[in-house]
Amino acid sequence: MTSDTDAPVTVPARRGRPGYDRDRVLEIAVQLFNEQGYDATSVADLAQRLGLTKSALYHHFASKEELLAVALDQALSSLEAVLDDPRAQEGPASDRLRHVIRSATDVLVAQLPSVTLLLRVRGNSPVEQSALERRRLFDHRVTRLVAEAQREGDVRTDVDAAVVARLIFGMINSVVEWYRPGGSVDGDRLGHDIMTIALDGLQSHD
Amino acid sequence: MTSDTDAPVTVPARRGRPGYDRDRVLEIAVQLFNEQGYDATSVADLAQRLGLTKSALYHHFASKEELLAVALDQALSSLEAVLDDPRAQEGPASDRLRHVIRSATDVLVAQLPSVTLLLRVRGNSPVEQSALERRRLFDHRVTRLVAEAQREGDVRTDVDAAVVARLIFGMINSVVEWYRPGGSVDGDRLGHDIMTIALDGLQSHD
Repeated sequence: MTSDTDAPVTVPARRGRPGYDRDRVLEIAVQLFNEQGYDATSVADLAQRLGLTKSALYHHFASKEELLAVALDQALSSLEAVLDDPRAQEGPASDRLRHVIRSATDVLVAQLPSVTLLLRVRGNSPVEQSALERRRLFDHRVTRLVAEAQREGDVRTDVDAAVVARLIFGMINSVVEWYRPGGSVDGDRLGHDIMTIALDGLQSHD
Repeated sequence: MTSDTDAPVTVPARRGRPGYDRDRVLEIAVQLFNEQGYDATSVADLAQRLGLTKSALYHHFASKEELLAVALDQALSSLEAVLDDPRAQEGPASDRLRHVIRSATDVLVAQLPSVTLLLRVRGNSPVEQSALERRRLFDHRVTRLVAEAQREGDVRTDVDAAVVARLIFGMINSVVEWYRPGGSVDGDRLGHDIMTIALDGLQSHD
């Protein structure tokens, strides 16, 4: 899963057309998967969109499924890194929860295409099932964090921790439905807004 | 769009097989659309699932698109009724917002299949575009309600009203991804939980 862009610059590109490295092929593939659905996208569709022959495409990725696996791994690794960050590991659970809500939203905004793809996965293949399993583990870790904040007395206990985790990530994930980079809503601001609504609620406390 | 079940009971059923009225055909069709996607579902698939011939199916609905139109209209009409209710029309805006959040969640829980179908619509046909337009009008009405509650001083003004409306409905709509009737989470309780988190936040105020 290493990128061809990691190669020393003195080595001439041997693969694909000039202008296409592995990252760029992946980016365009994810865009196409999101537009017309992964299952409905053929390798021929991908090659056409890229302006490459199928065999040139196969130099970059062994299969359509490898493109999916790499894209899903990028999204999941970035989300998992949020939970592995020291700010999600140390200190009061409610502060850690704030960090997770805010940083997960930042990941979603920064990696909108691959997270969009991840959120549409339904488990139709081993690659998709493995991604769903990693999502489940992520959800369990967030649920444990909510439960810890409840035990520490900082989060209300009249709502089940697993329901809270699902609803908060429901709010975060819904951003893929409408947020567009460069649109009227500032992506940097979204993490703050979601964290504020989730923790403090809409109600004015003036 | 009236239902055959509205017909007087003295009139013998002339259409379809015994046991299938128009509502039941619609229910099974929506289930199949949600399972395998509307575009990927053929009339032959529907007939097979129903155990009907295509022509028997056409006695109930003129086309696959009519099934989609009727299902989307049911979901949208129920959601619009929430905003048309006197509890969403009279009194302080923050109380009306509470009613809308709670009742919209109840609609989603009660009509999970048709709302799930609605939320997956991407605008691939005039029927889908018209459903998206009704969703946009619904969102605008919710945004106006949030803005009114902000003007009345009951909802925080440091988050844009349109962003609030999207995030709150993002949380509500995310329920289709995991809520299942008869599962471990009580559907009657969900509307309360979402309303509580949205308005009061997770933070304990003890």
